[in-house]
Parts: sequence; structure tokens; C-alpha cells
Amino acid sequence: MSTCPIDTRVIRPIRFLAGQCQMLDQRLLPAEEVWHSYTTYQEIAEAISTMVVRGAPAIGVAAAIGAWFGARDIETESSWDFYQEFEKICAVLVATRPTAVNLSWALERMKHFAESNLDRSVLELKIGLEYEALAITQEDEKINRMMGQHGEPLLVDGARVLTHCNAGALATAGYGTALGVIRAAVEAGKNISVIADETRPFLQGARLTAWELQRENIPVTLICDNMAGYLMSKGEIDCVIVGADRIAANGDVANKIGTYTVAVLAKEHNIPFYVAAPVSTIDLSLNDGSLIPIEERDEREITHIKDIQLAPKGISVRNPAFDVTPSRLITAIITEHGIVTGDYRAGLDQIVKHR
Amino acid sequence: MSTCPIDTRVIRPIRFLAGQCQMLDQRLLPAEEVWHSYTTYQEIAEAISTMVVRGAPAIGVAAAIGAWFGARDIETESSWDFYQEFEKICAVLVATRPTAVNLSWALERMKHFAESNLDRSVLELKIGLEYEALAITQEDEKINRMMGQHGEPLLVDGARVLTHCNAGALATAGYGTALGVIRAAVEAGKNISVIADETRPFLQGARLTAWELQRENIPVTLICDNMAGYLMSKGEIDCVIVGADRIAANGDVANKIGTYTVAVLAKEHNIPFYVAAPVSTIDLSLNDGSLIPIEERDEREITHIKDIQLAPKGISVRNPAFDVTPSRLITAIITEHGIVTGDYRAGLDQIVKHR
Repeated sequence: MSTCPIDTRVIRPIRFLAGQCQMLDQRLLPAEEVWHSYTTYQEIAEAISTMVVRGAPAIGVAAAIGAWFGARDIETESSWDFYQEFEKICAVLVATRPTAVNLSWALERMKHFAESNLDRSVLELKIGLEYEALAITQEDEKINRMMGQHGEPLLVDGARVLTHCNAGALATAGYGTALGVIRAAVEAGKNISVIADETRPFLQGARLTAWELQRENIPVTLICDNMAGYLMSKGEIDCVIVGADRIAANGDVANKIGTYTVAVLAKEHNIPFYVAAPVSTIDLSLNDGSLIPIEERDEREITHIKDIQLAPKGISVRNPAFDVTPSRLITAIITEHGIVTGDYRAGLDQIVKHR
Repeated sequence: MSTCPIDTRVIRPIRFLAGQCQMLDQRLLPAEEVWHSYTTYQEIAEAISTMVVRGAPAIGVAAAIGAWFGARDIETESSWDFYQEFEKICAVLVATRPTAVNLSWALERMKHFAESNLDRSVLELKIGLEYEALAITQEDEKINRMMGQHGEPLLVDGARVLTHCNAGALATAGYGTALGVIRAAVEAGKNISVIADETRPFLQGARLTAWELQRENIPVTLICDNMAGYLMSKGEIDCVIVGADRIAANGDVANKIGTYTVAVLAKEHNIPFYVAAPVSTIDLSLNDGSLIPIEERDEREITHIKDIQLAPKGISVRNPAFDVTPSRLITAIITEHGIVTGDYRAGLDQIVKHR
């Protein structure tokens, strides 16, 4: 198991080169592997909102790097003035996408560092924020590997595992959450095959999950989102594992649109439904999932594929990017600190406060 | 309510001109309205298998026309030889698509006519088969209007109705089955708004249902298939109405892939789930839905949109074109002879034998 950051066989969608942050453009996969270089927080904010980088943990990492780059460019000798400016930069970054809480979690961690060190010089703050951003990046992959170790016993040898969207290396700093659990099961010597929902409209399953797993020779079969029920009814799916964008205190999970439908289908067929997510995804400030803000994205994501028009001009469209799966439909939540099941409110509270 | 066949405002995907059959190429909608002319049964078989024309009732009509064209070109004076040839032509046509039973229903009706009139001359048989094919075409629209009359009381004023795939005028000779019920409710003065699943991979909802309804100013909102559950959970859908490709004796319904998922979601949210289909869709020879053959179509329908590659090269794909919704999830089946609910086996038997 190599964790060497220059091993190009390992998929890491965010990398550093000569003081710049490079991100793999996930909008262009699998046809093209294009890396963009960023040096300012504005560029990184744009990369997050336009989904060059996506996936709850990955946008948390990207936001931390954006905050670091923003901090680097603040011109003042006053730590107090520095902090005022830094807060504004974080406010721009946090507004890029509303649903995934990892974004605000990472920025809160960056702000907390700065706020706790206002007695230091601006130079020291800048160095400290760089260190913090790099720590968030490195920890993310380590967390995913821990999550994999906790979760992989849930996948039996021979399991046919359905996943939705991409909760893989591409959605994180590396290794992945849901796909991390699958990777860990494969590394443990189990035969695992994956059924990937294509995940309209952005096609993260077809474009990203299929690409990631194919690259690592993990057997993967692509289906349209509306085919999961058919395969379940035929007994061709043994369990479901997905990531999460935000988990409320009661265990309700916001994740990519369509996750709720998969969970309802899993319940109908008595198939276990697992969520894999870092503790940073848990938002104890929200009593339940109804309070999680759901982003609605541009109509064009649905009406067009590149320049091809799929629907009549002027058609009315709804494009919610996420939905909420109530905890009653969730068999277990896998985190880096262990598995929560049953009484989610108590279990999540315990796991967050003891992290 | 105009039924004039030359009223071009009315959508009819199959029309006749100068002894040729013209079909609207449904693969090119909504971007282009292209009509192809056919004069041989081989051309019509190709149009059915490549989905120039699709929709269970429409392919039944198309097959009848194909059989008529095939009959027209048989060169013999012997009625018995004629019938031998005609059977071969029907065998080619019935093999074009396996799931919709309307195809074999229409061809059985054509064969039955010929077989019952073998004492007639070949010329009389040809004239009779032309008459029969035109009757099947004209009856189909009339049947849909009857279905609309029976079904429209199920839709209350203000109803927000989800539909999947296209069970509209484009799926029939005209007026539609599921969309026929919606049209009838609108004609009865009710405000009805439609939520259309885009229906991957062929996008019948985005391309055809949206186009049809927009053209008639019936309010329609397009969503991805994986968004229906979200809208139901928000209380934004009042009922579901879909068409059918084959209905088994116990009321299990084969319809476009994804229909089963919508039915499971409707049950989870206590939303009525209606099926609208002509009696020709009912196949009493099959005890239940597990016996209905499910067509698996080409991988490219999923991996590409025109020439744009959506998934990595060499990816494994499943592409079942239909699924089966068990009758326990169906609130009512609407036919031209009335509504069946509750004991489907008895109700369908009754309605088929009294048609």
C-alpha cells in the first residue's frame, strides 16, 4: 500500500507543484486528463463552484488550500487586519457550494487556527495556515484509509456492491470514502464487483467512478440510475455503499441526488445500505436532515450534454443536486473512528466529541 | 376535439402519403422533425428495431403496416403460398423487439385475417390486409381517447402528475395512453401539470414527452430519473401515470426501465400509481410478470450521446430496456374498456374476454 505522493498510479485529484495547486479537471474525465494550475483563492473558488473539483471531502481540501493562497496574498503587517481580510476570503470560499459541510468545516478549522494565534506575526500566521491546509489534505487520505479498515468487514467476499455518484479518490484527497471501503476490501483479498449508477446529470458514476475503478482493475459495471431497482429485484446487488455531503445529528444523510431513491429501493429489497463519510461531514448543529440546504444547479446540466440539446428549448427544469436519506433507511454509517448504527443521535454525538 | 388526419397540429407519428408510410424519426426529436418514407416491410422492421418509431401501441401499428406492405409485394396467385410467405414476413417483424406484446398482438390479428380468408383470392387477401392495417391504426387513437375518458376522473383539478418515458401521442397512432389520460383531464377543464422523468438512456421523457406537452401548452417540468424520489419526499407529486409494454394475467406490468423504481417510490410516499394501456397490451398467456422477456439493448445507448463518450472505453455495461412492476404496487390499470383495480387476475380476464 503506497502512500507516496509522487506515485502517479495513485489517484489524487489535487497536487502541488512549484508553489501552485494543480487540480484534475473532473468535468473532462474520462475523455481527457487535464490538470489546471491555481495560485489565487478566487481561482480555487471558481474551480469549486464550476465543479472542476467536486466531492465533499475534496472541496473541503480545496477550500483549505484556497484559504491558504488567499492568506498568502494579504498585504498587511497587522495580525488583526490580516484576520479581517482572511475572514472575507473564507466567506467567498464557503459560498461556492451550500450542501457539503466539509467546506465550512475546513474553513472553520483554518479560521480557528488564525483566530487562536492573533498574538503571532502575519508571517507566522501565513506559515501556520499553509501548514494547516497541507495537514487537512494529508489527513484526508489517512482518514479514508482508516474508514476503509473499519468498513471493509461489512463487505463479504464475492459481494456485488452498488454505489451512486463518485465517493472515490476523486472525491477526496485520495483513496475515497465509499470507494475507499471497497478498495480496503479488495486489498484484504476479497473479490468485490461494483455496480456504478451513472448519476445524472453530471454523470459522476459514468465518468469518474467507472474511470477510477477500471484504472485499478476492480470489476465495475455501469448502469443508468433507473436500472438499480431492476438489478435489485433480480437479486444482483448484495449491498449499497455511498458517501455523504452532510450528516445531521439524527443520522439523516444529504448526498448526491438519487441517493434517497437507492435507499428506498434497498429497504424494499432488504439490502444493507451503508454510508461512508469522515467525521468532518457530521453537522451536529442540525437536528435533522430537513434543515440541510439543498443546492439547485443550472438547468443546462440537464438540458444539454456539451453542446447537444437533449430537451426542447424553453422547457422548465428542476435540478436539485442533493437529496436527504432519512436515517431509518441507513444500515450503518462508517467513519474513521468506527461504525455508527442503531441510535444515530447518540452514536454520532459520541463519535464527534471523541474525535 | 379534432380527429382530422390532416390537422398538422395534432401529433401523429405515423402517416400515409401517396401509398407510402411516413414515420417521424423519434431519435432526432426535439432538435429536428424529420419524416422518413417507407414502402417495404424490411424498412419498417428496421425502423422498429432502431427506434425511429417506439412505444408499445405505435410499434404494434407499425408492425401491422409492415405486414400490409410485405403482403402487397408477395408475388403468387396461390392463397396458400401467399399465406406461407406472409407468415415469414410476420416472423421477421415480430422479432424486431421482444417486450411489447402489442407487436405480436397486431401481427396475430393480421395473420388471423389472412388465415380465416384462405378461400379468397390473393388480391382479396391483399386488399383485406390493407384494410386491417388501416383499421388497427385508426382504432388505436380511438382507443386512447376512450382510455382518456375512463382515466381522467382519477386526476383531480390541480394535480401534479409524474410520468416516466413517453406514453404519449408519439408512442401510439395518436393522443397517447398515459398522456392521453392527461390530455383528457386538460380537455375536461382541469389544471394539470406534468413532471417528466428524462428516462435514460434513450431520453424519451426529455426529448419526446417534454416536446409533446410543450407543443400543446400543458405545463411540464423536466427532471432526471433520480430526482422523482426527492420531489415525492417534498410533497410535490400527487400521482404517477405511466404506459405499459406488456401486462401479465396477474396485473404485473412491464414498462420502460425505471418504472419499477417509480412505483416503489410511489408506494413509499402513498402516492397513487396508475397504468394506462390498451387491452392489446394484456397478455393472459403469461401467469405473471417474471415470464415477460426483457430486452437488453446496445451498450452504446448508455456510453455515448451521439458521438460524445460519457464513460471510459471498454467499460462493462448493463442496458435492460424494461422492468416489471408487480401488481401490488399498482393502484389501477386504465383501459379503453374501463378501470381494473384490486383483483387484477379476475379484472383483466373479464376485460379481455369482453372486449
